[in-house]
Amino acid sequence: MRKPVVGIGLVGSGFMGRCHANAFRAVSGLFDIAVEPALRVLADATPELAQQAAGSLGFERGTGDWKTMVADESVDIVAITAPNVMHSPIAHAAIAAGKTVYCEKPLSTTAAIALDMTEAAEAAGVVNLVGFNFLRHPMIGLAREIIASGEIGEVTGFRGRHAENYMSDPDAPHSFRTDPQGGGALADIGSHIISMARYLIGPITQVQADCQTLHATRPTHPNSAERTPVFVDDMTHALIRFENGVAGSLEANWAATARNMDLSWEITGTNGALAFSQEQMNELQLYSTKRGRCGYTRIEAGPEHPPYGNFCPAPGHHLGFNDLKVIEVAELLTAHAGGAKAGPDFREAYEVQKTVEAMHASNLSRQWVTI
Amino acid sequence: MRKPVVGIGLVGSGFMGRCHANAFRAVSGLFDIAVEPALRVLADATPELAQQAAGSLGFERGTGDWKTMVADESVDIVAITAPNVMHSPIAHAAIAAGKTVYCEKPLSTTAAIALDMTEAAEAAGVVNLVGFNFLRHPMIGLAREIIASGEIGEVTGFRGRHAENYMSDPDAPHSFRTDPQGGGALADIGSHIISMARYLIGPITQVQADCQTLHATRPTHPNSAERTPVFVDDMTHALIRFENGVAGSLEANWAATARNMDLSWEITGTNGALAFSQEQMNELQLYSTKRGRCGYTRIEAGPEHPPYGNFCPAPGHHLGFNDLKVIEVAELLTAHAGGAKAGPDFREAYEVQKTVEAMHASNLSRQWVTI
Amino acid sequence: MRKPVVGIGLVGSGFMGRCHANAFRAVSGLFDIAVEPALRVLADATPELAQQAAGSLGFERGTGDWKTMVADESVDIVAITAPNVMHSPIAHAAIAAGKTVYCEKPLSTTAAIALDMTEAAEAAGVVNLVGFNFLRHPMIGLAREIIASGEIGEVTGFRGRHAENYMSDPDAPHSFRTDPQGGGALADIGSHIISMARYLIGPITQVQADCQTLHATRPTHPNSAERTPVFVDDMTHALIRFENGVAGSLEANWAATARNMDLSWEITGTNGALAFSQEQMNELQLYSTKRGRCGYTRIEAGPEHPPYGNFCPAPGHHLGFNDLKVIEVAELLTAHAGGAKAGPDFREAYEVQKTVEAMHASNLSRQWVTI
Amino acid sequence: MRKPVVGIGLVGSGFMGRCHANAFRAVSGLFDIAVEPALRVLADATPELAQQAAGSLGFERGTGDWKTMVADESVDIVAITAPNVMHSPIAHAAIAAGKTVYCEKPLSTTAAIALDMTEAAEAAGVVNLVGFNFLRHPMIGLAREIIASGEIGEVTGFRGRHAENYMSDPDAPHSFRTDPQGGGALADIGSHIISMARYLIGPITQVQADCQTLHATRPTHPNSAERTPVFVDDMTHALIRFENGVAGSLEANWAATARNMDLSWEITGTNGALAFSQEQMNELQLYSTKRGRCGYTRIEAGPEHPPYGNFCPAPGHHLGFNDLKVIEVAELLTAHAGGAKAGPDFREAYEVQKTVEAMHASNLSRQWVTI
Repeated sequence: MRKPVVGIGLVGSGFMGRCHANAFRAVSGLFDIAVEPALRVLADATPELAQQAAGSLGFERGTGDWKTMVADESVDIVAITAPNVMHSPIAHAAIAAGKTVYCEKPLSTTAAIALDMTEAAEAAGVVNLVGFNFLRHPMIGLAREIIASGEIGEVTGFRGRHAENYMSDPDAPHSFRTDPQGGGALADIGSHIISMARYLIGPITQVQADCQTLHATRPTHPNSAERTPVFVDDMTHALIRFENGVAGSLEANWAATARNMDLSWEITGTNGALAFSQEQMNELQLYSTKRGRCGYTRIEAGPEHPPYGNFCPAPGHHLGFNDLKVIEVAELLTAHAGGAKAGPDFREAYEVQKTVEAMHASNLSRQWVTI
Repeated sequence: MRKPVVGIGLVGSGFMGRCHANAFRAVSGLFDIAVEPALRVLADATPELAQQAAGSLGFERGTGDWKTMVADESVDIVAITAPNVMHSPIAHAAIAAGKTVYCEKPLSTTAAIALDMTEAAEAAGVVNLVGFNFLRHPMIGLAREIIASGEIGEVTGFRGRHAENYMSDPDAPHSFRTDPQGGGALADIGSHIISMARYLIGPITQVQADCQTLHATRPTHPNSAERTPVFVDDMTHALIRFENGVAGSLEANWAATARNMDLSWEITGTNGALAFSQEQMNELQLYSTKRGRCGYTRIEAGPEHPPYGNFCPAPGHHLGFNDLKVIEVAELLTAHAGGAKAGPDFREAYEVQKTVEAMHASNLSRQWVTI
Repeated sequence: MRKPVVGIGLVGSGFMGRCHANAFRAVSGLFDIAVEPALRVLADATPELAQQAAGSLGFERGTGDWKTMVADESVDIVAITAPNVMHSPIAHAAIAAGKTVYCEKPLSTTAAIALDMTEAAEAAGVVNLVGFNFLRHPMIGLAREIIASGEIGEVTGFRGRHAENYMSDPDAPHSFRTDPQGGGALADIGSHIISMARYLIGPITQVQADCQTLHATRPTHPNSAERTPVFVDDMTHALIRFENGVAGSLEANWAATARNMDLSWEITGTNGALAFSQEQMNELQLYSTKRGRCGYTRIEAGPEHPPYGNFCPAPGHHLGFNDLKVIEVAELLTAHAGGAKAGPDFREAYEVQKTVEAMHASNLSRQWVTI
Repeated sequence: MRKPVVGIGLVGSGFMGRCHANAFRAVSGLFDIAVEPALRVLADATPELAQQAAGSLGFERGTGDWKTMVADESVDIVAITAPNVMHSPIAHAAIAAGKTVYCEKPLSTTAAIALDMTEAAEAAGVVNLVGFNFLRHPMIGLAREIIASGEIGEVTGFRGRHAENYMSDPDAPHSFRTDPQGGGALADIGSHIISMARYLIGPITQVQADCQTLHATRPTHPNSAERTPVFVDDMTHALIRFENGVAGSLEANWAATARNMDLSWEITGTNGALAFSQEQMNELQLYSTKRGRCGYTRIEAGPEHPPYGNFCPAPGHHLGFNDLKVIEVAELLTAHAGGAKAGPDFREAYEVQKTVEAMHASNLSRQWVTI
């Protein structure tokens, strides 16, 4: 008996567009889901680009007009990897058409627009999911489970960071990333460590951030001699308080010269602690005062940490970045098919964005801001 | 313009069978190859098993008879993940049919049979490849390039190991792995570190090994109370000499209680050294006396290390184990399409197996054995 | 020719008192200094304690009255490891007597008192030094040298921490450490990371801190059932700005369950970065974009990093914590003998304390505080 | 009440001589031993050298004739850090004089001479100790205790190494280290990993070694243009079997370009494993299948691991290399004062040397050698 087929429409074929496409191609071989995705329509900036990308990524057809894709009857799920400013109109159209919406982070350029999108999706009752892929690793799930179980006691402190170096070169050009409309290190990657902090500990309710623009101007375009002033943050340090009273700090930094992927944190509890870095994404460090012979124990990912076993029956073989997207897509399809609700949904992404904006506000006012 | 389609036939649907299938599904989205694979026929032990696996892995049809699959006109490449003892008859049939053969390691149960397979493949002129997937990581390619360039000077020493713990439990049952016909830690995983040593330094010409069976009996079947005596090695330590005069040691150990995937080595040269462990498979450690401020530099995989960029345009995002198989399949398809020859081919796999057998012989004779 | 003898007087024989005594005993065998220390008088709370400690630590005599020690003509250097509240009177007496003063950190219980001590010492022109021993490691010196040389470009960010777990147990008793007079994690160990940040980057001019008391009460005395409310911080997170514009964050935490000695930092520059942790105190991590093959290079301490060679002629042999005190004492004696001025002096310690107090003030006001 | 004074005589004032002297100076401040050492006589190659060294290291007097020192009535313990070839005559003289003998490793240039020394010391009943200082670290003691307790089950495998780079430069000159009389990497540092293997697991009874001279000639003297042929090993790989049946391998390498101090091992047991490297000498890695959440736990040295607490009351503060010598000297003095016997004694050092020689023999014969 064949599984019901679910048609996929995708906007965008850049880094994340390719990542989505490949995840949809791979998912059925790895997860036993009630439905089978079919790559129907890829929309891109021009028909030519779309055609070419559709060919290379395995979609049935391409279109230069995302509205055509959204309206296509064969499309059940709309995946959005377009520039941030396009997220809202595409998502609204997909919601209006009653389709499942799967959007890359950040959900939109402002929290207000994100809220609008959230309310629309909720009112329409469509399945909606935002691509905070780093949450998908089994070791993050294990961390959450350990914290919830009380194994490290009551949480007392958080220290987190997302630091990369893709903008450390002062000649890295201006782009949507540095657009005052929703740009900056905090919005771009700070959102990852914020979403992870929320996932593991809970809502953040008070913030005080210090943002810095390290390079005052950047080339207007790649290799351009002309330069544009930059107003967004290259680096932000922030103090945070969670709803449950836990205090901590976090950093977002896209000019961290020595770091390719330092999405890392330590969570301390009264009876232990957990530590994680995306630099060793298949490991979780656990310290427990109850185990004797105290010290951080390096737990390697294995089949006992679902859904690792879907990828490999033996421990120590490592998931890669693209596998995280496959897990995300598996959860999306499961929710689409009426199974367990997938998260983080639009509302959660809106909350992350509100936290980012509160940090921006606190930076300007030099005051603590309550969210 | 559509690419020519290449039909894939697969034998087996276990760990490696799934891994092959998923790699063939994923490859076109990630690599731009001249041909497009189509999953045609999956052969398994029974028609029922085959049908079910074909469905879940995305093959057009299943069969309980591998001969049917090999003979199928729509099948151009025969991928073999059957039990080791089956490799030879399947490969010979595929070679006889003039098809490309892609076989899991070890190539066969004895070096003699492996040589037979090799000579048949060479005589027929068919493309042939063996699945030593750990060689595919960009950081192993980088290591090879660094060594070849003389960047660490002349190589003076090698120290390697492949240690896992999947048989450390004395109640891990007897299986094909512990069958005296081609079984044991040295044949099963020692072959990985041998193939890597050969890939990086060259042929091994003299060996002296010390094999040990740590658990004299194992359950006849999973959960069985009855036990079978075990004759193969759980752990082997060996001294080795390479053709170019370099000396070293290696260990194969499937009862290394603390290790999930310690496939690791250090290669020392007169002006530096390289170190690698599959436990941090996206890193290579480089020491160079010419750089000043001496110390191991931890190089993280990124787009400058092909084919990392096929998976992700940004560094630090990590490839996973399954991605290695995708790279392997991309090389296979490229070779099949008339592009660059892929390795390790049957002959190389035969050389690895000969090295394993020389180690077994030296263990029995307690003498150095020249290969 | 015998070297001139310098008489040492010490107050206190606890952890730090012993550490001072042993450093004075060891220093001449390791450093070639113009003078030779002689352990003259040890002062402690009672004559009995003092006598016993003098015996075990190798002092000529003990006294229950520190004034006697300070006044002793054979004493040239007064070393103070008494409770913090005693630092000021002892130091003032020693200064008045024209003696060299060597005081444990924190210099005093308040910045105001510390300033008083500083001005007295400066007016009297006596050599004065404060025991920020962690600055003494050759790798910290190397870090400073690398930063000053511009090797990592212009510094752009700082992220530091001093986290230990000695107060993570809620039943760790009240003591001078938890006394509102100068107590708390920030004053006790935050001062170390502040002094290191200043040493490496420069003065801190703006702060915003968030202090938390994690355990509201602690046993009044060791093993007491009665409990005292606690008002000092167990954990502080702070945002900081340096005089040169660099932004960053730091944490002081004595309830960091998993940490014995996480005095660590990363300093990012436009062309590289440095990272250090006291957990691997004999290593410095250097990242330089100018070296090619980018990645953190793990530099191990060796004779090329003075004064490592005074302890061992071969690299990789490791200095220990007590060796840091020997280096400190060597610098003290050198300054006493008229050689290079030793730091950090009282004024520097006062600046550290002022920074701590600014953080406390910002915590209360919830405002940024300019120092 | 003053403790009885024990007079120390020392031969040699190089790296190890200084190290001994400093340990004797420091020990009483750190350990409460029944006796108090006094540095009496330092013997060196010439009276001038001896005088100067006596002055800088704190000895009462120097002499150019070690016999004078040994005969000196004020000397109770003879510490030998002279060139290896001198160990035997000095030790025999000290033994004949009924004095405690403390000798650097290797005990002598041949096992036969070492046995002679051993039998003389045993016949005379004098306290004797050999300076295998790396055994003194509390974490090595902890490892031994864990193994003995059965916490990691029955030991099944050993993999060890002592690799440094002090001879990796082909222009590092000829010296006593490269003298065929007792020289080579195996004798010089291989002895450390052999002694550690014996300490932790037991006697080694069978060996098969492969020795290599990497640099066929070396400068006759430092900076000399003339070169001498080298006959000793720069690098040795060996297979070993312990008396209790455990198999393993070890490497001795003084031309390991990337390594300053890789004295490291992994010991695997049926229920766990231990791993250690002198590169992180204050840590022991423990894996236990009984603890759940499996993985290596990084145990940091602290006061619960005697005699760490003699150096510092707080964990995580790190012992250094020189502290190991202080522990050794504390054990020596305790034994001299009639307390617990200290090890490794001459007999143990002889056993180590016999193992080294068996390895040399096996290298020549290319056969396994039974000890």
